[in-house]
Amino acid sequence: MARCDELARVTATPGEIERVYLSPEHARVNRLAAEWMRELGMRTWQDAAGNQFGRIEPASAPAADRLPSHSDRRPALVLGSHLDTVLDAGRYDGIVGVLMALEVVRLLRVPVGDGAAPDGQAWAVPLPFAIEVVAFSDEEGTRFGKALLGSSAVAGSWDDAWWQLTDADGVTLHRAFLEFGLDPGRIGEAAKRPDEVVAYLEAHIEQGPELDRSGQPLAVVSSIASARRFQLVVEGEARHAGGTPYDMRRDALLGASEAALAVERICSAEHHIIGTVGQFEAFPGAVNVIPGEVQFSLDLRGEFDGERDRVWDAVTRELDAIMGRRGLRWTAREVHSAPAVFCAPLLQDVVAAGIAGFAPNPREAPPVIFSRAGHDGMALGAIADVGMLFLRNPDGISHHPDEAVAAGDVAHGIRALAESVLLLGHEPRA
Amino acid sequence: MARCDELARVTATPGEIERVYLSPEHARVNRLAAEWMRELGMRTWQDAAGNQFGRIEPASAPAADRLPSHSDRRPALVLGSHLDTVLDAGRYDGIVGVLMALEVVRLLRVPVGDGAAPDGQAWAVPLPFAIEVVAFSDEEGTRFGKALLGSSAVAGSWDDAWWQLTDADGVTLHRAFLEFGLDPGRIGEAAKRPDEVVAYLEAHIEQGPELDRSGQPLAVVSSIASARRFQLVVEGEARHAGGTPYDMRRDALLGASEAALAVERICSAEHHIIGTVGQFEAFPGAVNVIPGEVQFSLDLRGEFDGERDRVWDAVTRELDAIMGRRGLRWTAREVHSAPAVFCAPLLQDVVAAGIAGFAPNPREAPPVIFSRAGHDGMALGAIADVGMLFLRNPDGISHHPDEAVAAGDVAHGIRALAESVLLLGHEPRA
Repeated sequence: MARCDELARVTATPGEIERVYLSPEHARVNRLAAEWMRELGMRTWQDAAGNQFGRIEPASAPAADRLPSHSDRRPALVLGSHLDTVLDAGRYDGIVGVLMALEVVRLLRVPVGDGAAPDGQAWAVPLPFAIEVVAFSDEEGTRFGKALLGSSAVAGSWDDAWWQLTDADGVTLHRAFLEFGLDPGRIGEAAKRPDEVVAYLEAHIEQGPELDRSGQPLAVVSSIASARRFQLVVEGEARHAGGTPYDMRRDALLGASEAALAVERICSAEHHIIGTVGQFEAFPGAVNVIPGEVQFSLDLRGEFDGERDRVWDAVTRELDAIMGRRGLRWTAREVHSAPAVFCAPLLQDVVAAGIAGFAPNPREAPPVIFSRAGHDGMALGAIADVGMLFLRNPDGISHHPDEAVAAGDVAHGIRALAESVLLLGHEPRA
Repeated sequence: MARCDELARVTATPGEIERVYLSPEHARVNRLAAEWMRELGMRTWQDAAGNQFGRIEPASAPAADRLPSHSDRRPALVLGSHLDTVLDAGRYDGIVGVLMALEVVRLLRVPVGDGAAPDGQAWAVPLPFAIEVVAFSDEEGTRFGKALLGSSAVAGSWDDAWWQLTDADGVTLHRAFLEFGLDPGRIGEAAKRPDEVVAYLEAHIEQGPELDRSGQPLAVVSSIASARRFQLVVEGEARHAGGTPYDMRRDALLGASEAALAVERICSAEHHIIGTVGQFEAFPGAVNVIPGEVQFSLDLRGEFDGERDRVWDAVTRELDAIMGRRGLRWTAREVHSAPAVFCAPLLQDVVAAGIAGFAPNPREAPPVIFSRAGHDGMALGAIADVGMLFLRNPDGISHHPDEAVAAGDVAHGIRALAESVLLLGHEPRA
């Protein structure tokens, strides 16, 4: 918990938490995480996409394999989450998952005393695979509007079209890479092959109220929501606010306001769909000028891809009707699309058993939750089985300074996650 | 028209027109206007609020009074408008009124050849009063959210509370004065006494479609709308867009969207009320965070103060209902309030006669229009009778780059305005 506080102090905006991709704060938390990894005896590196990795070898590996100078021979179980944040963020989303992964390594590691380590005690994990802890560099998509950039690079699904994405200051992703000291031409080196990864396992706060409502500290995640994100523009005509009668107005703000309310109305009528307009700004933005343009975002999530796409179709029909009635034009640009990712049954089983091993009433099966929030596992699903463990999120508040998690739940979660990893190590299916 | 284009090139944003109060562009257009005034033989000064003045004495004044070194002895008819703009503005709103006033001086001035002028030909007007042309420095209120700052200083209605107004960068009006080279302690010197001002007469584009719809080039203005402006804040709770179900959301954007639509609904049901939400921005403004706060502006105008206030009351009741239903808080800060100003009957008469003198069919009375847009006359009304002449605004577009006016209408307006001034000079009531 102290490290969550320490990371919270690395921010671009004093008094708030703000760490975005390829920023100076990103570099600082990577250095901090690498230091903590090395304290555990892990070999560390920052990959070609700015993700911070630490690796500890299996105790069964030949001593030579455990030397930092050797390339990775054994496949690794990848544990971790992300260290980037939204604007004015909380201090646990992503962060607690990275720190819990480090604590799992601390619980599991054993000294290997063959004297081969150049600088004192060497450590390994008593498992048939290595463990890599990853701190992904961009999960939120705060800076470039495109989420999962860090984990997409690891999954080998980087799209060269993304180089032209720009931040609010017009800086392209390509230029930001160069300014951060990364070589865009080497992005492919961040990709892992499926045979290098045993599985990807992540602990994360729930970012919703289900666990808190049911009084449970931990849950198994069954799947991660399908999501699509759009940037929409409504265009009307900027005119003088006093002189223009209502019958001559083509007010982009009123059309966009109706659109935001239509999204709420359409999604509320569905069972597992959530739609959110998070960004919304009117232009030119003068008190006495009718808005000629509004730019806004739409984030659409659902348990199933088909349901989500059907709702988007309904939204577009409603937008056509609203804008047609008001003499406005509208366009939408899709900036993110991710299919639903289902957690592997084996990983759901070991996480459930890990939680049950430390539960107050072990005979009670832990809750199984569908994650409406997106996670790095959505990208990693392309190359590995994915499993997730959720921590209770008091009052369900996330992406906000009030975001909280109980220290007891985190301690409980670390033990459950370590137990899950041990079970996976003894699992013949793994 | 060439000077409108020349002024349009003085902008803070290349490719658009943007000149706000106390900016470098403000200083540049004041210098340009002063140069044009001096070419006409006017004495020029920038007053304590950054308004640019030029003065030409009556021909009947003693020669000594016509010397630049003397204080003003004779009351002046003040002609003019403003040179500041909204963001991404047109090139005629305000500007054309200042330039028409200069052309009126050019039409009316006569040489006075007593050799007293130190640098060549001296000029005067053949009227019983002086003419002052004013280019007001802040009518739109673009920078500090408070309109009519320039003309309020001249009217002696400056409010010391305004010094703490801040622009978008947090610069106070007080600091902006100092940075522009003005002394806030001397603001009182900008104020004119009622006995110094014969009347205030302004030509302006209509900023609405009435003249264009009726096929008339010019109109007499009967009154200037009553107006109130508010800055509103809706507060909810910023939460994760994926994890928070609809029943736990307190989405400030949806509440504010309903508010904007309620303003339209309430005002549309009235005859002479226009309400506009021009500024609107959601915070924190991330694609995956529910907006916890929205800031927006409301501009409310009506022909009569009572009607306007009754509508504001209806809006507040509706806001209470919307925000109560959604668990949101709302606050409103009034940033501008101006009662309706009725143009003096004498000035309406001379403007009507001036227009009729040059009308295609002089027996047809010119149209009389109520101005929904605010003008500097609203402030000047506190110390002088106010008259206005409107020019046809093709398609009624204003506060927009497409704002237009026909050169023929401007020429016609200049002659009508000059004729009005001459008539006023011969009017025993003046």
